[in-house]
Amino acid sequence: MIPRDAAELVDLARGGSRTALARLLTYVESGGPEQRATAALAYASAPPYVVGLTGAPGAGKSTLTDRLISLALQKASFDGVDPFEQVGVLCVDPSSPFSGGAILGDRIRMQDHATNVHVFIRSMATRGHLGGLSLAVPDAIRVLATAQFPLVFVETVGVGQMEVEIASAADTTIVVTNPGWGDSMQANKAGLLEVADIFVINKADRPGVRETRRDLEQMLDLGGAHQWRPLIVETIASDASDVSGTEALWDAIVAHRRYLDAGPRDDDRRARTRVALDKVLAAMVRAHVGALAKGAAYEAQVDALLDGTTDPYCAAETLLSES
Amino acid sequence: MIPRDAAELVDLARGGSRTALARLLTYVESGGPEQRATAALAYASAPPYVVGLTGAPGAGKSTLTDRLISLALQKASFDGVDPFEQVGVLCVDPSSPFSGGAILGDRIRMQDHATNVHVFIRSMATRGHLGGLSLAVPDAIRVLATAQFPLVFVETVGVGQMEVEIASAADTTIVVTNPGWGDSMQANKAGLLEVADIFVINKADRPGVRETRRDLEQMLDLGGAHQWRPLIVETIASDASDVSGTEALWDAIVAHRRYLDAGPRDDDRRARTRVALDKVLAAMVRAHVGALAKGAAYEAQVDALLDGTTDPYCAAETLLSES
Repeated sequence: MIPRDAAELVDLARGGSRTALARLLTYVESGGPEQRATAALAYASAPPYVVGLTGAPGAGKSTLTDRLISLALQKASFDGVDPFEQVGVLCVDPSSPFSGGAILGDRIRMQDHATNVHVFIRSMATRGHLGGLSLAVPDAIRVLATAQFPLVFVETVGVGQMEVEIASAADTTIVVTNPGWGDSMQANKAGLLEVADIFVINKADRPGVRETRRDLEQMLDLGGAHQWRPLIVETIASDASDVSGTEALWDAIVAHRRYLDAGPRDDDRRARTRVALDKVLAAMVRAHVGALAKGAAYEAQVDALLDGTTDPYCAAETLLSES
Repeated sequence: MIPRDAAELVDLARGGSRTALARLLTYVESGGPEQRATAALAYASAPPYVVGLTGAPGAGKSTLTDRLISLALQKASFDGVDPFEQVGVLCVDPSSPFSGGAILGDRIRMQDHATNVHVFIRSMATRGHLGGLSLAVPDAIRVLATAQFPLVFVETVGVGQMEVEIASAADTTIVVTNPGWGDSMQANKAGLLEVADIFVINKADRPGVRETRRDLEQMLDLGGAHQWRPLIVETIASDASDVSGTEALWDAIVAHRRYLDAGPRDDDRRARTRVALDKVLAAMVRAHVGALAKGAAYEAQVDALLDGTTDPYCAAETLLSES
């Protein structure tokens, strides 16, 4: 019998229980008291190292993630010696909250790892978390940290604002493109350039790879003097049996990690902690405004506005001061 | 000497002082205590009838507005008898807060009216209003109502979310297109379809007008069973001396007004009052969160998060309860 208590589940998850871990993640997705209890325990752990992958559907993120999992478990890691002992993967598809086709495909592609005790793969869904996936994913990352995962991949499907926001909360953010990427990513190119630490041109056996690299280089040239110039890595990973370039991608991740280690990490952590706190503040306030905007006191202010006996600023202040 | 007191300015504006009216509108744009004092007086007046015009830059909104002003001052109005005695125009260009080229051009185009005592034209700018133009424009509309303008045109330049939001707060919303409009408006076509009461195909002497009308009709057919099917009016108004179809546009505005009069106006006014109040509530809460997200108490919570002694939810609750 799996307990329902978050503290007991955390103990079990630390001992290796995947069922307990899965339940904690369901708590996180669901919002409500269990989410709060889980967060209170999970945020006591330091964050793991997080690698975000984002890109248009079909760009090949899952196959790349699949290969990166293997490399993380095999190759010298950030300390230059030991590989990672276990790796977590969160798959996020904001456009399909209940885990539709793409995520199912991902799971099948990653199935070799699904039975590997060193790997834990989870498709995230929103089931009521007050901040949706943009808060549930950071919570889930801390839950994995609590269960002693030192490395977590976060794969987001799509290149919209939310996908990019989720992916860019990672330590190292990889934007996966293909030759001719311009068409699929035009709408949010600036956003992607902003967040990318590494660009992958996947399916680099297709025509147009040279032009795509040149386009990327030109955009990076225009991007000004950032300290870290995003690396561009070409890979061929249309399916798991035919992979080239993923070792170079792993090396690029390690290089970016080394760069971060040499930089002002404390400032960076503080800035990201602020962003995380502001997001929760904003979500709580939104919920609060939603609650204010109904009920008798609210309708009374609407009546007063219709009568011309108040103005919207006085009405809003009255509601806020009464709450 | 023009007074600084909002109540005195309102008295002067009602007596016809354009200088007093202009100062009240500056108060509205600026935010701060003067804005609040102005709003408290202005929202005592019933709203005027508001006609919103939106469309891509260069679509010909200003020339159309220019013609509509003349018609409003000449032709039988909503009562079927008297023309309007005075007409207000607010020009809004969210992309150029300090009134750049487009608005200057508008003013030149409308210059015949600028010296007409029955017409008041103002380019709106944000100068600190807590809700930006999306709150300053509704405030300005009420200021014009207080100064006894029964009809206000609100012209927004552009078809982004904010422009459409501002324009759609009107009683009658006109979306100005041109032959081949698809290209310029593709990104927000659904939003424009949602808000339009009247579509104008301006520059209807250019090729492609038939295809544009057909596209619009098809989209309206797909739009489902709204009570009011948006009218489509063709105009040729590339400059003020060569105008055709604008009388039909005026008739369309009158027809839409008659439709509204016959409908459940109270429900509609209540729904719009709620939207206006919710906007102010949200803006105040955003300002409140902005204030929370600095200062010693906030930094103490960030420290606690970095130490792992709290989680973002507890930290946010602490900040909200202390405020």
